[in-house]
Amino acid sequence: MPTQLSYARNSTITKQMRYVAEQENVDVGWLMQQISDGKIIIPANVNHKKLHPIGIGKGLKTKINANIGASKIRAGIAEELKKLEYCIKYGADTAMDLSTGGNLNVIRQSIIDASPIPIGTVPTYQVVEEANGKIENIKADDWLDVIELQAKQGVDYMTIHAGILRRTLPLTKNRVTGIVSRGGAILARWMVENDKENPLYTQFEQICDIFEKYDVTFSLGDSLRPGCLHDATDAAQIEELKILGELTLKAWEKDCQVMIEGPGHIPLNQIKLNVELEKKYCHNAPFYVLGPLVTDIAPGYDHITSAIGAAVAGQYGADYLCYVTPAEHLGLPGPEEVKQGIIAYKIAAHAADIAKGIPNARQRDDELSKARFDFDWEKQFALSLDPETARKIRSDLGMEADFCSMCGPDYCSMRNFHKIIEEKTFNERKREDKAKKLKQMEEERLI
Amino acid sequence: MPTQLSYARNSTITKQMRYVAEQENVDVGWLMQQISDGKIIIPANVNHKKLHPIGIGKGLKTKINANIGASKIRAGIAEELKKLEYCIKYGADTAMDLSTGGNLNVIRQSIIDASPIPIGTVPTYQVVEEANGKIENIKADDWLDVIELQAKQGVDYMTIHAGILRRTLPLTKNRVTGIVSRGGAILARWMVENDKENPLYTQFEQICDIFEKYDVTFSLGDSLRPGCLHDATDAAQIEELKILGELTLKAWEKDCQVMIEGPGHIPLNQIKLNVELEKKYCHNAPFYVLGPLVTDIAPGYDHITSAIGAAVAGQYGADYLCYVTPAEHLGLPGPEEVKQGIIAYKIAAHAADIAKGIPNARQRDDELSKARFDFDWEKQFALSLDPETARKIRSDLGMEADFCSMCGPDYCSMRNFHKIIEEKTFNERKREDKAKKLKQMEEERLI
Repeated sequence: MPTQLSYARNSTITKQMRYVAEQENVDVGWLMQQISDGKIIIPANVNHKKLHPIGIGKGLKTKINANIGASKIRAGIAEELKKLEYCIKYGADTAMDLSTGGNLNVIRQSIIDASPIPIGTVPTYQVVEEANGKIENIKADDWLDVIELQAKQGVDYMTIHAGILRRTLPLTKNRVTGIVSRGGAILARWMVENDKENPLYTQFEQICDIFEKYDVTFSLGDSLRPGCLHDATDAAQIEELKILGELTLKAWEKDCQVMIEGPGHIPLNQIKLNVELEKKYCHNAPFYVLGPLVTDIAPGYDHITSAIGAAVAGQYGADYLCYVTPAEHLGLPGPEEVKQGIIAYKIAAHAADIAKGIPNARQRDDELSKARFDFDWEKQFALSLDPETARKIRSDLGMEADFCSMCGPDYCSMRNFHKIIEEKTFNERKREDKAKKLKQMEEERLI
Repeated sequence: MPTQLSYARNSTITKQMRYVAEQENVDVGWLMQQISDGKIIIPANVNHKKLHPIGIGKGLKTKINANIGASKIRAGIAEELKKLEYCIKYGADTAMDLSTGGNLNVIRQSIIDASPIPIGTVPTYQVVEEANGKIENIKADDWLDVIELQAKQGVDYMTIHAGILRRTLPLTKNRVTGIVSRGGAILARWMVENDKENPLYTQFEQICDIFEKYDVTFSLGDSLRPGCLHDATDAAQIEELKILGELTLKAWEKDCQVMIEGPGHIPLNQIKLNVELEKKYCHNAPFYVLGPLVTDIAPGYDHITSAIGAAVAGQYGADYLCYVTPAEHLGLPGPEEVKQGIIAYKIAAHAADIAKGIPNARQRDDELSKARFDFDWEKQFALSLDPETARKIRSDLGMEADFCSMCGPDYCSMRNFHKIIEEKTFNERKREDKAKKLKQMEEERLI
């Protein structure tokens, strides 16, 4: 079964490309060329029947991912489907099922069957689960079995931690927080305990064969991403990035689509550099960043510390932002934390799109601002990312009032500005009339 | 009574300079020189007895301000003192009493008397209040009376909207949201209705005389700041900035300290430019930005939309960040919104300080990250911006567990990394031992 990449290389426009081009308002021929060059991906497993495909990469809108999934401590399929519902309601572009507890196959299939958005996974978690947590007992080809099983289920992209190698482990020795990638730490432990090279690296071609068969997109995992500012942009991180670049070329040879995962925890002033290094070493493959968090001192608020980094990463060219929730570093996010994470990342991605110059990105801002100036509260809420929350804060005053409880009527700047324009009459609201009056006043030199 | 600026110009080191130099760990002679050059201010009214002074400007830590204050709709002194308590508890460097309702003089005096942090005001609000909201009836020298009264009470800095002039009003005609500064819109309306020039501009010298007497710092208001992305960095905004630059020089002639207020709503990619323009046109006077918000589409979450902009503004040289709360554009913030705004801005300012290269700014991050790696939850919380919130999210598992409910024990990357280092023994936690074992393993080529 050909992948989107192989179709593009053969100059064949697929229905997925057509759908994405329409959604993004871009030329489908241009889109096909970008896919062919590896700059854009469409993660779309041939078995994900309900999928509305999306494109990720340069020239398209910045996308956001929400991690969901049960853990051993809290494993309920209903809660996971509730999280998926929030992903769709609040606008996550994709979701990753990172379950490590409960019946993994059933949870995953339920999520895929219910989901119109692409679903990603980290197959290593299931590999560990099937070994009952005994990492040292895992056989190298256990990974291939699990990957094939998940591919068959319809997973659209998988994190493959193939870039962490035995030779790169000692590079972590001066780190404050060592290895903070779950999958990466599992592979590191497997390598040390079995005295063997990374099985995802040694079996990379076999994985490509499975991915090609179902058109699963590689999300090449950054096992050595920094877990704190101290460890940012260090030798371990950059060495792995170069290896991911080599693997990108190998996957492309096999017609597999690829994106690259990135950090993590990065000071504001190193984010641009990180994006540039990824684009350089990984041949312009789409960049999928986790945050980054720009400080380590705010557990409980890491949706904010990381939304700052994500917006800036997006501005400088990151294509896809993996959200972080307020529960990060503390516990498993529930539906409310999932919502908070998504909203923070919708903000970051949208701010990035405006800064990146995505055509018409600012249109929604302009419409909302016009509604704000017109005291059209309902329209303002309808255009906002979370109408319920905005309405709730507003609820201390009725929707008819042309001011809010912050300023009251006398101090409201917009009311006062309206009064200037309208020569003290404030009876009608139509913008055209206002513009006419303003022009007239200007001619009469009243303002 | 000489101001901090006049002392600095006369090479006299004051106790306020000494205190600030100690707090910031900078040389007091250097600090005095920066004050003399107008690059750093110490807002410290001679009548604010309880004040622990702070410095604001290049080379010092980025500061944050929290706006508090009652409105007509919600005017309770107890609530305002609760907000002040939160300002101090969560680490706001200053607070502005923006009350427009209740007994203004009593609320203000209560706040000043209770506050160890500098307090700012916008005297125009009281001027309007005393005219019962009838802007057209205000006499020009009413402003001087109110300014003198507030200066005498001990207000450390005041927003003076002296930069909005009759000739600049028509520059707003193509805007989507017109004038969004409360004080600015009041002055615009006064000018149009009375057919006179801005009384804060025409009486600027008299204001300087009052400010010099009590050492009140000018916060030159940006009446024409953009209220939405559409209006950002437009002719109105930049024209006013130039006028503020001229007023800065006039204030400095009178030995008055000055900072400049800035936007507002600015796309991410225009923030650096905005900081550079302020520094250029306003002769390197400290820059005090409101956010900026990097998108208009998230009412209810504008503490986040603006913390992104604030962090980036700080990174590029903004010295002082005025917070925005989740209630922005919707209503008056209560104590909980004040708290949320402060935390978001502590994050932004700290991220900016790390990016700016403030010495040792990252120390707290490193200590928290070490505690995180050691599963020392209590230390991690103690070092965090909001220990209660972090503890609450963590509370689904006991403080003794060396994992969290996100990953559980088998998948915890740090646990797995510890196990690698410690050769499967996980009995002791001391970092020195870990480092020793790591070295030993490395020598034995185990990793």
